[in-house]
Amino acid sequence: MSGHIAVIGAGLVGAGWAIVFARSGHEVRVFDASETIRERLPSHFRASLEAMATYDLITDVDMVLRRITVCCSVSDAVVGADYVQESVVERVDLKREVCAEIDCYLGPLSLVGSSTSGLPASSFTEGCANRERFVVAHPVNPPHLVPVVEIVPAPWTNDTTVQKTRDLMQSVGQAPVVVTREIPGFILNRLQGALLDEAWWLFDQGYATAEDIDKTVKYGLGLRWAFMGPFETIDLNAPTGIDDYARRLGPMYVELAEGRPPAGPWSDDAVRRATEERRAALPADQIDARRAWRDNRLMALVASQRKLVP
Amino acid sequence: MSGHIAVIGAGLVGAGWAIVFARSGHEVRVFDASETIRERLPSHFRASLEAMATYDLITDVDMVLRRITVCCSVSDAVVGADYVQESVVERVDLKREVCAEIDCYLGPLSLVGSSTSGLPASSFTEGCANRERFVVAHPVNPPHLVPVVEIVPAPWTNDTTVQKTRDLMQSVGQAPVVVTREIPGFILNRLQGALLDEAWWLFDQGYATAEDIDKTVKYGLGLRWAFMGPFETIDLNAPTGIDDYARRLGPMYVELAEGRPPAGPWSDDAVRRATEERRAALPADQIDARRAWRDNRLMALVASQRKLVP
Repeated sequence: MSGHIAVIGAGLVGAGWAIVFARSGHEVRVFDASETIRERLPSHFRASLEAMATYDLITDVDMVLRRITVCCSVSDAVVGADYVQESVVERVDLKREVCAEIDCYLGPLSLVGSSTSGLPASSFTEGCANRERFVVAHPVNPPHLVPVVEIVPAPWTNDTTVQKTRDLMQSVGQAPVVVTREIPGFILNRLQGALLDEAWWLFDQGYATAEDIDKTVKYGLGLRWAFMGPFETIDLNAPTGIDDYARRLGPMYVELAEGRPPAGPWSDDAVRRATEERRAALPADQIDARRAWRDNRLMALVASQRKLVP
Repeated sequence: MSGHIAVIGAGLVGAGWAIVFARSGHEVRVFDASETIRERLPSHFRASLEAMATYDLITDVDMVLRRITVCCSVSDAVVGADYVQESVVERVDLKREVCAEIDCYLGPLSLVGSSTSGLPASSFTEGCANRERFVVAHPVNPPHLVPVVEIVPAPWTNDTTVQKTRDLMQSVGQAPVVVTREIPGFILNRLQGALLDEAWWLFDQGYATAEDIDKTVKYGLGLRWAFMGPFETIDLNAPTGIDDYARRLGPMYVELAEGRPPAGPWSDDAVRRATEERRAALPADQIDARRAWRDNRLMALVASQRKLVP
């Protein structure tokens, strides 16, 4: 790539994206409609990068900082960009408006990835002149610490856009996955939702506390899923592999699925009780501090995994 | 506790249990009905402990080894034990037979935990004279690396047994969770099953490759679930906590759940295609080596997490 990368919308997600691209050597131009956010960005970038440096996730904070420019308009950021990461607030009307503006300034070969976590690209890119070069590139927050990116084409997104966005994400150290066509929740939130629904139901029925359900994941399932996916996990959990596992344990999983309740909202009573339990474990005025703990744990985890055989 | 701990059945799970108890200072007496297994145990224990020592998970291999005695009968192992961990093969008739024998030699205050991953304790302890002191204590394989233990009472298990088993597990460095009453799959496999069913369906419908679904977990969801459970994760993912998250994102999860297919077996075609994909990524003759990799990664992960704020 000869040009720079533009990031439009610089809340937590957009700011994380700017770090992702800048740390891997790209020049980044960032725009946010809020002047308050724009003014806060330089100190925010410095704080994030200095935290990463303490975990050896980055070496030269100043060099990375110098690659990021905060711009005062969409056009300043987008003109000349090879790739644009759209990260504005999750509202379809706003996404449509911002994508239309990006579309006006887009170079003839430039691509646009949207950070949307749930809106299909088809709901906000249909009117774009270059709509075949718009795609969803959904990260997990914060993108500079959690590498997965879901790449999801609209029906009119062309294959080159999918492939090049995937290659770009790979080249900047993210972990791109391709979702072949649009589906609500993409892959990540569908998997999370399936587990959450079961967790809420078990809690609601009184089988275990929220704390014990959390422990079952963090001291059990999550320890394997942190470096293997669910398929590799079961592939290694039967003598001759995944088909062997399906033969041995498939019938048990059918029985468990048959015991599951039909789709429906999490019960109000369960939400109320889980909130009580969580606020007893973590008072409201300590949530922010716990988020900082989470980010530190993520940095430590990512840093330790980098040293290991994938 | 004044007496020792007995482990009955010494396949991978039972052998792992012997290490769990011995490393935390308990005298352990192990029995397996197979003479071949009994003869192999000392070298197996040494190899496991030496691997753990390389990750600083244990300091004195010989001291731990000296605490483990391989016995030649159930009675030799069980007489005088404060706690018995039953880990024989997952067959209800065999569990019933072995539990009846353990029951004969059980001290007046001694407890029995079963490693069963799916059989309810009520299906194999009903006839025991001391059945109120039998409970499920289900580990994840291998128990000396993955700390979670699901404690699940039969209807006749008394509260003291649940509480004392939980305390014992906590004291030996495991992570006990209490499932308040019997349910197929307990907590862990129900959560795993919910996610697996969704993963299989997405794969079957061609939304993503098995590799990309695995990446979505290991580079996304699993990085958080390795140190937070699903409830803590969402509690930190909305400005004011879990109830705020439920309000904001509950409707999305209802939509995702409504799109899920009804319960049923994983499709034969999906299993066939996933097997092809897995065997292309990991040939059959490399599965054993990959299991060793998995155990090394688990040791590295557990060792790195021990140094961090929980």
